[in-house]
Formats: sequence, structure tokens, C-alpha cells
Amino acid sequence: MAGPSVLTPQNEDFPQWYQEVVAKAEMADNGPVRGTMVIRPYGYAIWERIQSAIDERIKLAGAQNAYFPLFIPESYLSKEAEHVEGFSPELAVVTHAGGEELAEPIVVRPTSETVIGEFMAKWIQSHRDLPLLLNQWANVVRWEMRPRLFLRSSEFLWQEGHTAHASARDASAYALKIHLEVYHDFLEKVLAVPTFLGIKPPSERFAGATNTMTCEGMMRDGKALQMATSHELGQNFARAFDIYFQSEQGQSELCYTTSWGASTRLVGGLIMAHGDDRGLILPPALAPIQVVVLAVREDDEVLTACRDQYDQLTAAGVRAHVDDGRRGSFGRRVTDWEMKGVPVRIEVGPRDLAQGLVSVVRRDTGEKSTVAVADAAALASSLVRDVQGAMLNAARTLRDSRTTTVSDLDGAIEVAQEGFARVEWSKVGDAGEARLKSQAMTVRCLQRSDGSMPENERESGLVAIVARSY
Amino acid sequence: MAGPSVLTPQNEDFPQWYQEVVAKAEMADNGPVRGTMVIRPYGYAIWERIQSAIDERIKLAGAQNAYFPLFIPESYLSKEAEHVEGFSPELAVVTHAGGEELAEPIVVRPTSETVIGEFMAKWIQSHRDLPLLLNQWANVVRWEMRPRLFLRSSEFLWQEGHTAHASARDASAYALKIHLEVYHDFLEKVLAVPTFLGIKPPSERFAGATNTMTCEGMMRDGKALQMATSHELGQNFARAFDIYFQSEQGQSELCYTTSWGASTRLVGGLIMAHGDDRGLILPPALAPIQVVVLAVREDDEVLTACRDQYDQLTAAGVRAHVDDGRRGSFGRRVTDWEMKGVPVRIEVGPRDLAQGLVSVVRRDTGEKSTVAVADAAALASSLVRDVQGAMLNAARTLRDSRTTTVSDLDGAIEVAQEGFARVEWSKVGDAGEARLKSQAMTVRCLQRSDGSMPENERESGLVAIVARSY
Repeated sequence: MAGPSVLTPQNEDFPQWYQEVVAKAEMADNGPVRGTMVIRPYGYAIWERIQSAIDERIKLAGAQNAYFPLFIPESYLSKEAEHVEGFSPELAVVTHAGGEELAEPIVVRPTSETVIGEFMAKWIQSHRDLPLLLNQWANVVRWEMRPRLFLRSSEFLWQEGHTAHASARDASAYALKIHLEVYHDFLEKVLAVPTFLGIKPPSERFAGATNTMTCEGMMRDGKALQMATSHELGQNFARAFDIYFQSEQGQSELCYTTSWGASTRLVGGLIMAHGDDRGLILPPALAPIQVVVLAVREDDEVLTACRDQYDQLTAAGVRAHVDDGRRGSFGRRVTDWEMKGVPVRIEVGPRDLAQGLVSVVRRDTGEKSTVAVADAAALASSLVRDVQGAMLNAARTLRDSRTTTVSDLDGAIEVAQEGFARVEWSKVGDAGEARLKSQAMTVRCLQRSDGSMPENERESGLVAIVARSY
Repeated sequence: MAGPSVLTPQNEDFPQWYQEVVAKAEMADNGPVRGTMVIRPYGYAIWERIQSAIDERIKLAGAQNAYFPLFIPESYLSKEAEHVEGFSPELAVVTHAGGEELAEPIVVRPTSETVIGEFMAKWIQSHRDLPLLLNQWANVVRWEMRPRLFLRSSEFLWQEGHTAHASARDASAYALKIHLEVYHDFLEKVLAVPTFLGIKPPSERFAGATNTMTCEGMMRDGKALQMATSHELGQNFARAFDIYFQSEQGQSELCYTTSWGASTRLVGGLIMAHGDDRGLILPPALAPIQVVVLAVREDDEVLTACRDQYDQLTAAGVRAHVDDGRRGSFGRRVTDWEMKGVPVRIEVGPRDLAQGLVSVVRRDTGEKSTVAVADAAALASSLVRDVQGAMLNAARTLRDSRTTTVSDLDGAIEVAQEGFARVEWSKVGDAGEARLKSQAMTVRCLQRSDGSMPENERESGLVAIVARSY
């Protein structure tokens, strides 16, 4: 199988490898307006599966989907001072519509805290209306100077949850619930990406938040990717948008709000956390095609055997696809299916078939088994189950091997050249953060020493995870 | 049950009734930017079910989902002359982004023919790449001077399918397949709205289309609503965007393209096709809650019985909900569930319960049965199945009773005051269309006399359906 590599090897030029995989696996293209993205059918099928796995968890956590407008009056963004400051250089502004210049310019939403805040104020009257738990799936726009497909695009797709609660304690507990039961659970069980849980240092918080929780994953070049964030907004947005409720004691009180999101960036994370020099490797839970049945060449008997495998797989609930051999040589098609990261393939060739045999190959390890035709579908189905856990373990092993505990900032800077450094937060401080920045590094998150989520950055004994990042 | 009406009666002021239902059933609110819409959780849950039923049919028809950018360079829209003319007064234009004025203004997509055309040109090389069958779920913007929630909003949600074919025949056949197997099937089986199938007269076609197929439904005030359209675009867009393919004979040929869409407007159609003076009436296939189990009042035994009904319904695959009686009087809650159009309710009261009885009520007919507790869930489940067909029949009966065949344009104008007129297309002509327009009427579609879809408006013996419309 070893031929000339179809991709720039990861260890030669990781960003170049990424760009080539995105193109060759037919995941996405650049749109005509700089920074925008065309998500091609294969990439979109993966996004649909991400969406549905996250949406299911959000509904289980009790939130309801709704839809708020794309367009926000410019004045809304200035109601929460820190928020407007955080976003103004990234905004796209509509000045003309319906054939005339608008009296007030309109902003294309960079996120929907402000407009949702406006409606929460309208819908919430009493403590009986709380908590109000909303989510929306939408496109948002943040102008990007250095766009990269999936990772940083001027328009991206995401879900944004927005909730209002009667107390700071309820708001914190719900944000934590979402962070653990939606994001962390999805990332480990579906995306097969182990993440470090923690809170952002104040300098890295979302504009207007009092606390930001994050899941930080390690990519195969040792850099970090922020996979999902959950924000406690305190009473900042409630104050700016008059989100009051009447308490059980009959008093008018300000709500506490949260927001939390995950985006098409996850597709970038999926690619970079698992892919290898042959292309994508998809965890079976996400793969649009879990098993591809390849005819080595066009031949009636081979095709009949392929369709029989397909029927058995489909009956077992496996998402299968038959490659009937009409498009290109066998070698070329194997390369293509490897590029697309299909977890398992069954190769059906006339010579093997004459002996009652077919081959079953795992994409993640490359392991190939030649088995009796009658056993192939069962083996492939069991691999579909096994590969999911194996990929999570492999990603965790890699991450742990490149995560080093160090005793000071110098050590952190050395380690974070190609991995994650764990260093006491008290050894960093403002000066330390500035020094990290000069090395293109940041504190990705703060954790307790046992890896659990702290309540705030003032807890003693916290550990900072330092890394380069996307 | 008869109390003071909570809604303006339909026959008094239908538009006012509509507006009140949308508000009181908590379907949607006006957004802060004129013409935009906030879809509230109950309205969005209905839209999610519409989406999933249409998406399933689109995938069965072989199209794949993808995602194209929100932003389109202004120059793209002028490539197809008729297309730009059709849209220019409706466009929203971004002139500033990333903190500076843009060199070329950007249009917020009113539809995606142009940008998808650009990428089809890139992706299609050979006849083996055809047909290329794409669909996307997205928001689009068409500035509205007289907005109305769901029916005409400046931003709306929709799916837009775009396909490319090797021949006019293939393109026509696929557009027709989508029209029948996706739209017409969905409208009858899920939305329970019977529609007239036909093609638009040339004056009413989509900008740039050579043929537009439509499904026209009748609302309860006798007006028409265009529920979905499918367009044959001939080679117009292929020519403007250079969508060529190499034929089997090795020649470079222009593709034939189609586009087809359905939008959040369907929610408006759902409301107006079935609702009555008590509010929404939802077909069970679409209802987020199919059976609501109401505790007449808070009481431990009543609640236990409610939960038992809920468990039986859920086990039978019915989407059920328990109203535990904590929020408001029984009468008020009945009014609210009727307003929300829940197809079936089970009322559990302490007095009935003492005799081993509960009541089961159908929303569409108001029919109430008092039955043994042990039989209630089975009765409610069978009603969930029966009501779907009953609603389609009732809508068809109403439509047919208000559809009249007339012999000339005068007759058509008289009938179309409050219903649909069927008149020979040859009796209309350009002058007739102008006269209809002066009466705020249009030819909604052209059909063969047997109600089937004609190939084009030049077939002899066609019948025009004339009506007022939304």
C-alpha cells in the first residue's frame, strides 16, 4: 500500500497538511467573499451528525430551541460596554436595504446575547418563568483577517445557548451542567477527543462574562483548540437589558444569565485531533459512512457479494456504502476512502472471493484481516463499535505523552513549543501572561490540581495549562 | 365550555385573528429590526418537525445537504440579468466590515442560485459528475415593506435545492420528482393541506426561470397561499456561471439547472389552513405535543393517574406532556392548550377518577368521550392516528366547496372574492391578467383539466386557478 504520500506529511508542515486534507477529502472550499466558507456535502454530513448529537444533549438538559434574527440594531451592541468593545472590529454592517440607506445601521449578529436579552426581558415576569433555557442553531459573522476553513471563518455555524436564572448559584450550576453533560460528554463519546476542563483566566474571558469555562483539546501538532465554551454573565446583561423577575417575596430582582456555544470549528478540531498522513480518520459515531464495501473491480459476482455485505451491515444498523468499482482504479479508490476517513472497509476481490474470503481493514490502525465472507459483516460491525473507544484512548495517550508538569514559566515556555505545560497559576500572573503572549502562547485554562473545574480563578493551588493554540 | 371568545373571530377579521393566534399560541414575535422575526420555542418546535419531514424526503430523492455563504459579492447578482432585476429592491447590502469600508459591497443572500452556480462550475467536469443534487437549509433576506410574521418576513428560514443535469429532460423530470415526492407528499401527509398542483403563468415565474411549478393551498378565508415552488432554470444560470460538462461524446456542453424551495411561510400556511376561533389546530404528525394529559386540579391521586397515562402514551410512541395543574385554573389551561392546537387531550379530574373514568377530547372536532381509565391511552393513541387523515379530509372538503368552475373572467372575479375560480386559461390572456391584478387577484397556477401538471403554459385546454393570495 505504501506509495508516494498524497499529502504533505504532518510533521513537515501541519497547516499545509490541514489545508490539503480539507480540500482532498472534499470537506470545504473558500467562498467568494474573503473569509467565508462553502461546506461541501461530505463536510456538511459530518456537521449534521455533530449537530444532532449536541442538540439531543441540549434538549436532555432541558433547553428549548428558538430562532432570533440575523440583524441587530447597532445600538443594541453598545448597551453592554465590554461587549461592544469585544466585538466592534469584527462586525459586518448593513447600511442599505430595500433600495435605500437605513436610518440606523444594522449589525449582522456576531452572537445573540443582546437581542435575546431584549426578549428575555419581555418574556420573564415572575420567578415561575425561571429558569428560561433557550438555544438556537444559527450562522454568525465575525470578520476574520486571517481566515482558515472551519477554524476561523468570517461566517460560521454554531449553537448558542442563552439562559436566565433567579440566582448566581442556579446560573453557575446550569452553565456547569451544560459544560459537562453537553460539551464534555459529546467531545469524549462522539468526537473521541479528550479535553482539559477548566476556566479561562480573566484576560481570556468572553466580552461581558464573569466566568468562562472551556474544553481544550490537543491537536496532533501539540497545539490547543478551544472546542466549546460556557459563560456565566452574572447580572451584566440582565442590567443592560432590564431582565428583571418578581421573586417569591414579591420583589423585583435582576436575573443572572449564561451563554454557551460550540461551532463548525469542531470540524476543524475533529480533523486535527485524529487525522494522519493519509487523511481524515473519523470516529464511527460521527462518520456519515461507517463501512465502505469496495469492489476490487467491476464484476457481477463481486458486486453481488458487495451488495450482500451492504444488506447485512444495514440490517445491523451500520451506515454502509458500496463502491461498485466504476470510478477509478482500486488503489486510487482505497486512497480516496482513506482520505475521507471511513472507519472500516471491506475489500471484495474476485480472487479472494473464489476462495470464499474478503478483507476487512481498519482505518485507524491500518490492521487488515482476511476472513470468510460469512464473517465479514459481523467483524466490520464489531469494529465499528470498538474503533470509537480505541480512538479516544489513542488521542488520550498522545495528549498525555505531550503534557508535562513544570515548575516555572521558563519550563512552561519550553514545553509549550510542542505540547501542553502544566504550571502553578501563581507562577504566572500578569507579567507571565504578557511573556507567554510574546511567545504566541496563552494560558488555555485553569484547573484544580486533580483536573477538576474550579469555581473561580482566585482559588488557591490552581494549575494553568499553557500552550500554543488555534 | 363556550365562554367569551379569546380571539377575534375568523369571519370578522381574518388577518387580525392570524396575528392574535401567532401571539397567543406563543409562535413568534416581531424582531427589533423592522420585518424580522423571533421564532419562539413552540413555533420553532413545529418548524423543526417541518424541517425533518422535508429533509427526509429530500434525502430519499437523492440530494445532499451542503452550506454556502450568507454573503455574496454584489457583482454575482448582475451576472444573470433577469435575476438581478427580480431581486434588487429587496436586497440588504453590507458596506462596512472589519472596521472599514469594503471595496465591493456585499449582498446578504436573497437566494443562492448565483453562488451555487459558481461552485457547480468548479465541481462539474464530466457527465459522470451529473446530476449534481444539492440542498441547503439556511436563512435568506428579502427586504419586506409590509411584513407579516411567517408569511412575509425580511429574514426567513428555508431550504433551497439546486441541481445540475445533462439534459432539459433530466432537469424537468427531477424538478417534477421533487415537486411531487417532496413537497406535495409532505403537504398532504404531514401538514394535512391539500394543494392544487400546477405551473405559474409566465408573468408569475421566478426571476430567471423557464418554468415554475407550485403547490397552492387554500386558507380558511378562501385566499391562496403558495406553499412551495420548483423552478426549471433552463441553461440561463449555467450560461451566466459557465456550468459546462464534457459529454459522453467528449463535447463541452452547458448544464440545465433547477432550484426549489419551501420556507417558514409553511408555518403561516399551517396556521391559516387549519386554525379556528379557539386557536391553532395541529395535525398530529407535526404537533410537538400530540396528547396533553391535564390534571383538573393539583391532587396526588390525579397526578399519579396523569403520569400513568403519560407512561402508557410514551411507551406507545406518542409525544405526550403532563399539565400538572400548577399554573392557572383548569378552564384557563384548557383554553391555552386549545390555543396551542394540541390534537388530543386527556382530562383527569378527582370526581371522574373516583368512578374510574377520564375524558378524552379531540381538538379538531371538539368531540369528548368519557371512558374507563384503562382505555384512555389506547383511545388517545388511536385518535392521534385518525385525526391526521380527518384533518386532510376536512381541509379538502372545505377547499372543494369553495372552488368553482366558471366560464369567463367576470365569473372568475366574482368567485375569487372568497374562494378559488377555475377558468379556461385561454379566456384570460395578458389583458385578463391585468384586470385580475386590478382586483388584487392573480392566476395562482395553470393545470390540465384533470388537475395534473402541464409541461408548459402553451398546452391547449389548460385551466387557470384564480384567487386572492398571501
